[in-house]
Amino acid sequence: MTTEAPPPPNPSGPNPSGDPLADAMLRGALDSAAGRVEAALDALLPLPEGPELRLVEAMRYAALGGGKRLRAFLVQESAALFGVNDTCAARVAAAVEMLHAYSLVHDDLPAMDNDDLRRGKPSTHRAFDEATAILAGDALQTRAFEVLAGEDTHSDPLARCELVAALALASGARGMAGGQMIDMLAEGRSLSPPEVTRLQALKTGRLIQFSAEAGAILGRAPAARRQALAGYGRDLGAAFQIADDLLDAEGTTEETGKTAGKDAAAGKATLVAMLGPERARAQAERLAAQAADHLDGFGPRADPLRALAAFVVARRS
Amino acid sequence: MTTEAPPPPNPSGPNPSGDPLADAMLRGALDSAAGRVEAALDALLPLPEGPELRLVEAMRYAALGGGKRLRAFLVQESAALFGVNDTCAARVAAAVEMLHAYSLVHDDLPAMDNDDLRRGKPSTHRAFDEATAILAGDALQTRAFEVLAGEDTHSDPLARCELVAALALASGARGMAGGQMIDMLAEGRSLSPPEVTRLQALKTGRLIQFSAEAGAILGRAPAARRQALAGYGRDLGAAFQIADDLLDAEGTTEETGKTAGKDAAAGKATLVAMLGPERARAQAERLAAQAADHLDGFGPRADPLRALAAFVVARRS
Repeated sequence: MTTEAPPPPNPSGPNPSGDPLADAMLRGALDSAAGRVEAALDALLPLPEGPELRLVEAMRYAALGGGKRLRAFLVQESAALFGVNDTCAARVAAAVEMLHAYSLVHDDLPAMDNDDLRRGKPSTHRAFDEATAILAGDALQTRAFEVLAGEDTHSDPLARCELVAALALASGARGMAGGQMIDMLAEGRSLSPPEVTRLQALKTGRLIQFSAEAGAILGRAPAARRQALAGYGRDLGAAFQIADDLLDAEGTTEETGKTAGKDAAAGKATLVAMLGPERARAQAERLAAQAADHLDGFGPRADPLRALAAFVVARRS
Repeated sequence: MTTEAPPPPNPSGPNPSGDPLADAMLRGALDSAAGRVEAALDALLPLPEGPELRLVEAMRYAALGGGKRLRAFLVQESAALFGVNDTCAARVAAAVEMLHAYSLVHDDLPAMDNDDLRRGKPSTHRAFDEATAILAGDALQTRAFEVLAGEDTHSDPLARCELVAALALASGARGMAGGQMIDMLAEGRSLSPPEVTRLQALKTGRLIQFSAEAGAILGRAPAARRQALAGYGRDLGAAFQIADDLLDAEGTTEETGKTAGKDAAAGKATLVAMLGPERARAQAERLAAQAADHLDGFGPRADPLRALAAFVVARRS
């Protein structure tokens, strides 16, 4: 995502390169946010002495050096809207990426999606073993909450509690884990488009929404600002998921770093399968535009978040 | 544990029935703490509408209606030392039991200990399926932190942050999960007694220690009080683990509700295997006495915690 500018996949679709300068600035901002979260993850996952070293090696394997860092970008850019200190924002970004990494490690397990490839390299249970992968996912989740609750994350303990509670709500049975359960139960069955939309809102949307809201929590922003960012995150997440499903259906394993076509092979319910790629892409574009509309009151400081909304539906990997 | 008074397994060992009144009072206190945590777990894990219902059913299956509730007892009794409100203490007790239940669900998985039986009934992956069990464990961990961070747990957000951070430290890579990693790596190899002691301190000791400390965090107690309770929890946890290993070596599946003799079958490193049952039991008794010594400054309100120290090394299930 942070390398070459991708060509727009559909000439009638939104074009993040319509303004080459804005496009270059977005790529710069993505690189910069990814660099900061990488450094934070490295610092927050030090290797211990003793045989438990292997566990932390697996945690680092899963969390470091990969991924688009979309969630980390959202945390850091939303925090920047309120002038939050970079170190605090990077800690929260790292916590969200640890939580996200844990979910990927567990989703890839043989009993779940049984995927051997993640971010272009062997998935954690292939690189280590299944038991170590289960434990590494577990401990990444734990560490995410530990980092949020730590003093260095915010001087006000109420802000830290709100971060813990909001991340837990986004990722537990009423959020990501609940969505994953619905997804598993849906394999081979037919869901309606509203059911698929709800599934995806839980499975991936809530965590993306939390990432966009996190800056407002860190910035002790008024409720209306937090709600606007939550709305942005919700619509962005929905657009992102459709774009991801389009990539799975149309992309290659080389482009995405994941096994291509596996949703269709698994009989997974996606809007792409239901609506066809054209209508699905149009819906993703509508959602991306709607996401940007939530940012109307934020002025030019929110330009990177606006550019991201266009980018997620145009990306090729 | 809360049914009939067990006979002391060794006539020369400490006898929790030395004072039948104290023994009856401990059993009453254990029952009462178990009842309160059961009610809190029931209230904190409501069944949702929608297909994610199955996930919460699995979480409830794993967390409700079983176990000795040793950790819940420690939280509630340590909280009572400082006059903490019962509802707050029960929430923290429920969070610790959710965390403990998650660890049991994942430990029992085929890739880990591969155990079909837990608390006298099929383990969660046998009652549901492996993927649901992985997710249920994940979501129980998430819910534990969500409950701790919630406003109803303590009026002071700093206390809530300390609870989150301390539970995470106790259960993550530097605690329980790290201990589980060492345990897995140790199967079939020979560890020295100090290595086994460290393994067990991490794998089970840290969470028991947290449970004993939690009351001091809730009660905003001076550091010396918190340290005394931490010392009590540490020694109690070590005594408890040896007693547990003795039960595994000597008890029957009917008595313990777990598959008996599986440590030996798996070549697991235990002090019982290394020292023999007599010396191991003597060490457990020394540790239990040492645990009680930490409570010297607490007066008669700490009697249930003292009685528990004698009880854990004498129990038969």
